[in-house]
Amino acid sequence: MFTLIPSGSVTSASGFLAGAVNAGIKSEDKLDLAILCSEVPCKAAGVFTTNQIKSAPVVLSQKHITKGRAQVIVVNSGCANACTARQGLADARVMANLAAAKLGISPEEVLIASTGIIGVPLPMDKIRAGIPKIKPTREGGHDFCRAIMTTDTRQKELAVQVDLKGTKFTIGGVAKGIGMIHPNLATMLCFIATDAVVSADFLQAALQKAVDCSFNMVSIDGDTSPNDCAFLLANGLAGNEPIDLDNGGDFQEALTAVCTHLAKSMAQDGEGATKLIEVIVEGAEDQAGARQAARTIAGSPLVKAAINGNNPNWGRVVAALGRSGARVREDRLDVYLNDVCVMKQGCPTPFSKEEMKLSLSNNDNVLIRLCLNLGDGQAIAWGCDLSEEYVRINSSYTT
Amino acid sequence: MFTLIPSGSVTSASGFLAGAVNAGIKSEDKLDLAILCSEVPCKAAGVFTTNQIKSAPVVLSQKHITKGRAQVIVVNSGCANACTARQGLADARVMANLAAAKLGISPEEVLIASTGIIGVPLPMDKIRAGIPKIKPTREGGHDFCRAIMTTDTRQKELAVQVDLKGTKFTIGGVAKGIGMIHPNLATMLCFIATDAVVSADFLQAALQKAVDCSFNMVSIDGDTSPNDCAFLLANGLAGNEPIDLDNGGDFQEALTAVCTHLAKSMAQDGEGATKLIEVIVEGAEDQAGARQAARTIAGSPLVKAAINGNNPNWGRVVAALGRSGARVREDRLDVYLNDVCVMKQGCPTPFSKEEMKLSLSNNDNVLIRLCLNLGDGQAIAWGCDLSEEYVRINSSYTT
Repeated sequence: MFTLIPSGSVTSASGFLAGAVNAGIKSEDKLDLAILCSEVPCKAAGVFTTNQIKSAPVVLSQKHITKGRAQVIVVNSGCANACTARQGLADARVMANLAAAKLGISPEEVLIASTGIIGVPLPMDKIRAGIPKIKPTREGGHDFCRAIMTTDTRQKELAVQVDLKGTKFTIGGVAKGIGMIHPNLATMLCFIATDAVVSADFLQAALQKAVDCSFNMVSIDGDTSPNDCAFLLANGLAGNEPIDLDNGGDFQEALTAVCTHLAKSMAQDGEGATKLIEVIVEGAEDQAGARQAARTIAGSPLVKAAINGNNPNWGRVVAALGRSGARVREDRLDVYLNDVCVMKQGCPTPFSKEEMKLSLSNNDNVLIRLCLNLGDGQAIAWGCDLSEEYVRINSSYTT
Repeated sequence: MFTLIPSGSVTSASGFLAGAVNAGIKSEDKLDLAILCSEVPCKAAGVFTTNQIKSAPVVLSQKHITKGRAQVIVVNSGCANACTARQGLADARVMANLAAAKLGISPEEVLIASTGIIGVPLPMDKIRAGIPKIKPTREGGHDFCRAIMTTDTRQKELAVQVDLKGTKFTIGGVAKGIGMIHPNLATMLCFIATDAVVSADFLQAALQKAVDCSFNMVSIDGDTSPNDCAFLLANGLAGNEPIDLDNGGDFQEALTAVCTHLAKSMAQDGEGATKLIEVIVEGAEDQAGARQAARTIAGSPLVKAAINGNNPNWGRVVAALGRSGARVREDRLDVYLNDVCVMKQGCPTPFSKEEMKLSLSNNDNVLIRLCLNLGDGQAIAWGCDLSEEYVRINSSYTT
């Protein structure tokens, strides 16, 4: 059980501060350099891109997080510091050192992240000039959120409160998308801050579990970024009884809800997207098959283009299922579009195309549900439609 | 060594005839039902979709081809006869029976194929009325080619002649694309007819080999169709010395050239495409890695959209490589765009963006070459750019 905090942000939990400045890294006059920090040291968990090409901030943060501790996250948008060779790693170190010096902590307690153009060195003069100007405050969560956006059109942030045996703790999260997003990891960037007291091992396991059924189930375009990461800081200021595997149910539920909300917001705000597509796969032979099937369908360009045109072309859904790798028996397959059955046990069922077109065009959320009738595996994936606007954005924008 | 036959078609080899009619299956007034046949029985080879959802004609043809013999191929466009359950299989059988009766052969000697809308039954009255009207002739190859097109904008056909120790044989081929195309199998439909004398085992192996480095290396949009298939008929009328593994080099070379030409034509004619993208991967750890890398890059929506905008955004190429599954060491990686080095041993190399933009906009063919410097694996894949037109086509067209 958890409750939503109105206008919540990544600084909603006790002891977290954030701030951002316009350092001039983005070409526009927008916030592009930000810090999130805790008043006290935190336990830290992280999940990183599976792309073999890893950005310098990912390489450095993976190193820093091995101790399971961190107190500060420094992020820039406008430049990914990826494919920047040794210079990139040196620049990432300087960025961490500057943030550490500013806050009087060790550089190993700093996690860093970057997003933006690949293959261009970080403008270190702007980073050097910008970091001292950042003034983290308790109210800075929304600025932090704006500072990490690139082609995002909407802020993606949320905070929830959990009552654990009379003691309340808070989980606040923020994320950015929205191109180059595909399992695994779909973040591209996600930062979560909680004041809960949590064991380090459970923290990492809980983040992985939450990411697996949220960010890893989102597909915008099939591409993964060298910069993807999700960080979770826990500063323990809520003073609850320590959370671990045996009593972690409420924490896991709330953390997963935060991640799922942020992941769905990403799909909804996919580049050029006009609709959120939710794919539910039930009755798969196993969980892995259900995940594969749901993600493949949510990521199929032909399915996505059909939804863009409010076109009830369920044949493309079945074709995507068939190539997903999940076991399929056509003669057992049931398919539903917005709750209308279009295929039952492998046979097309008659439905009104006009009514379905109306249902598709009147809803911002499209629901595709498949029952494979082979076992107990089930999964949900999210995607968005493929629009001409996506192509316009991505033929000119230099990521 | 082979020579191109001017205006060649699938009936260029001796003893092959083809014909087509407008049976009214497509909504437009176009050819949509066709027959390719040989004057004498043929050895036959086939490669089929790996999609678990297989169309009725694929299921039936897979059964018929097990004996390695066939004499007739009957094809319709406008309806895929996929996801049509038991009725679909019964209809496919009738279609084969009608073609067999027309030509006085056994139905098992008939291969069939369909392409078009999924989930709609074949209009059997039109098939029944249409098949008797088809008049196969030696000149019918081009009509056959037109009859199998759906969203194709150009005909895809070719014939080559080979001189084997003084005896000439011919290989003619025809294919259609062009949506729902991705390894494996990218056909969607391909038919090849030769008058060469070839052993049955070698015929199947040669087709598989040719398909692996041609159709299976093309990606239009990541989707595979339940209907993909490639058929190869060999009627032996050229009277050459029988071709087998030990003397099959020239045959293999010519067959691969035919398939490669057809595959590249498909990429070139990808839905909404304005450019052919050729991705060459060299120095991969192994062949499998090279293939994965080349196909992933050729299929990346972000790479495709960048090329559409003449945008030399090589970071997206490297990001796609990194998620391809092929082993990568960033510090060994060299990347070339249209022969200009943009990354050397993992370091971005300076290049004129303006000149590169010009080079991209002035060429219909874009060349992306990567040297992984890890081993001897190499592969070539083909794709096309992603345009707003692709989305327009696929949001309204019902496949």
